[in-house]
Amino acid sequence: MADFPAPLLPDPAEWSCPAPVRDRSVVLLGHGGGGALSAELMADIFAPAYGNEILDRLTDSATVDLGGARLAFSTDSHVVRPLFFPGGCIGDLAVNGTVNDLAMSGAQPAFLSCAFILEEGTELAVVERIAGAVGAAARAAGVSVVTGDTKVVDAGHGDGVFITSSGIGLVPRGVDIRPQRARPGDVVIVSGPVGLHGVAVLSVREGLEFGVEIASDTAPLGGLVAAMLAVTPELHVLRDPTRGGVATALHEIATASGTGVVIREDAVPVPEPVANACGFLGLDPLYVANEGRLLAFAPPEHTDALLDAMRAHPQGTGAVVIGECVAEHPGMVVARTGLGGTRVVDPPVGEQLPRIC
Amino acid sequence: MADFPAPLLPDPAEWSCPAPVRDRSVVLLGHGGGGALSAELMADIFAPAYGNEILDRLTDSATVDLGGARLAFSTDSHVVRPLFFPGGCIGDLAVNGTVNDLAMSGAQPAFLSCAFILEEGTELAVVERIAGAVGAAARAAGVSVVTGDTKVVDAGHGDGVFITSSGIGLVPRGVDIRPQRARPGDVVIVSGPVGLHGVAVLSVREGLEFGVEIASDTAPLGGLVAAMLAVTPELHVLRDPTRGGVATALHEIATASGTGVVIREDAVPVPEPVANACGFLGLDPLYVANEGRLLAFAPPEHTDALLDAMRAHPQGTGAVVIGECVAEHPGMVVARTGLGGTRVVDPPVGEQLPRIC
Repeated sequence: MADFPAPLLPDPAEWSCPAPVRDRSVVLLGHGGGGALSAELMADIFAPAYGNEILDRLTDSATVDLGGARLAFSTDSHVVRPLFFPGGCIGDLAVNGTVNDLAMSGAQPAFLSCAFILEEGTELAVVERIAGAVGAAARAAGVSVVTGDTKVVDAGHGDGVFITSSGIGLVPRGVDIRPQRARPGDVVIVSGPVGLHGVAVLSVREGLEFGVEIASDTAPLGGLVAAMLAVTPELHVLRDPTRGGVATALHEIATASGTGVVIREDAVPVPEPVANACGFLGLDPLYVANEGRLLAFAPPEHTDALLDAMRAHPQGTGAVVIGECVAEHPGMVVARTGLGGTRVVDPPVGEQLPRIC
Repeated sequence: MADFPAPLLPDPAEWSCPAPVRDRSVVLLGHGGGGALSAELMADIFAPAYGNEILDRLTDSATVDLGGARLAFSTDSHVVRPLFFPGGCIGDLAVNGTVNDLAMSGAQPAFLSCAFILEEGTELAVVERIAGAVGAAARAAGVSVVTGDTKVVDAGHGDGVFITSSGIGLVPRGVDIRPQRARPGDVVIVSGPVGLHGVAVLSVREGLEFGVEIASDTAPLGGLVAAMLAVTPELHVLRDPTRGGVATALHEIATASGTGVVIREDAVPVPEPVANACGFLGLDPLYVANEGRLLAFAPPEHTDALLDAMRAHPQGTGAVVIGECVAEHPGMVVARTGLGGTRVVDPPVGEQLPRIC
């Protein structure tokens, strides 16, 4: 796997943070895209301002100790446009997004908050439908929405409905799952087909039809993670490849852990309708958002047992190995193409699909 | 205190939920005002959708048990306009608002999340200044910002910066502070002068000058609450009178507990500049937002010791008794006016001051 000629790869300093010509003084859509611009915002503005070692871990959720309990704590704002799309709505995303961030620490999600920012003039029937989706998604995920808030902004200063959800969950003793723990030899598993959420949202936003309806994969992953932890608490990394897709998630893990990651492009499960839509739209499925998938990095001796447990769970029926961690090219993600070549999987600079979640 | 003629008061069914002519199918600014319209949204849409007994308690923060720890958990979105005002900015509000909601359960605030929704084109220098304020306010409050999120919406679909903060804190054993616990005989204490935040924001928004600068009272109240709990864990209710001011907070407590509340209008500390500005603007200071004050309901035997402890704390130097709970007129708040009359303190229907926090 590690037999390609490393010296031919570009110097990481040259590719890890591309700097196209742009206005560096204002917020760009790409600052919210989860890629290099988001990382820049974090490194240049938020981390220095808040400065503490928990934040510095850059995990999907923070793990903190409080009152003798080991807790995961996470938050996500949701600004998806349109509010409703095949397979779900902003309400599902708000619940599943936060539930999944908690689960990616190995935590059992327990309690959620939901804060709505509504635009004056939005139909109350829309708010009611979204609140109903929040409630249903919470019940499906086995969590309770225990607190919330509602603010209203004047017409023209918002966009219908924004939802920020936060959550807390309990991290089992002995579990230590974070991007820094990836190590050479780990297998890289994806829990199912990728690209569905991004293409589903984009198709309805742009009024496109691809012959078959492509529905978002939005789903809660707490149960799947619990099933995986029952196989072994020795999972190293879990990540849900949302904004920026599989490529961005892998890149973050490679960077955080300082290991190399190699994936086989033809092992990544891309459903044919997604591949066709991406071809039409000029998108790379590796960079398209998912809302009900996870990437797992685990010691190779657990591979078969993990795959069996995942495939036995409704959210993991499509689980497959897509790659592994290597000692070569630390911090870099490389894809082996179907033709036998290799390519570096760069982090996206900005936003491939704005307001996807 | 309870010698006014109760039969002359209107039937609560007639005044507790005024229904002016309005479009009932869309979101109004008043739905975010913390008054009757907000309560309607909660009762008609969110509570049925989420339905669980913790949410039903209607406290500023939820109290939950997790991993053997008793936790407070709270969230608030902030959409204040303008972003900067005398005495603070949206960043201070995001920290202090959530810290104070936690403290109102008697919890010691510990960890915060901060999620930004940025409008494309906002100056990064503005974001940096706000993030700096978040960090400074967190340090002042003794909490850590451990997780966050950033989303960007296209220009014209947001309003510069919205921040949603959530927080968790530890509730000491033996402490049970919630609006339902107010009971006849309780004294009602306010921790200092009221109306500063609302008038400060309004003055800069409207370009008004009132001779002296009126600065927001935004401040963290965790330390003050700890000092009060050191006097007695037997506090019944704590509430920070933010949106809707003292009147709305008192009304919520009266409703939740089913007790009557009587306040002496001339005992409520309204600074002269606030009184003058309210007179000019046609506002009632009892309904104007505060961001660094609390109302406490406590058994009367602790009054002197509580006032001493509060006045010895920087956030409580102006603490005074403003009223008491009575068995008469359950669920109703009555103010004794300076002229010896009484008036019912109704809840506001909607928004006296939109986007105040």
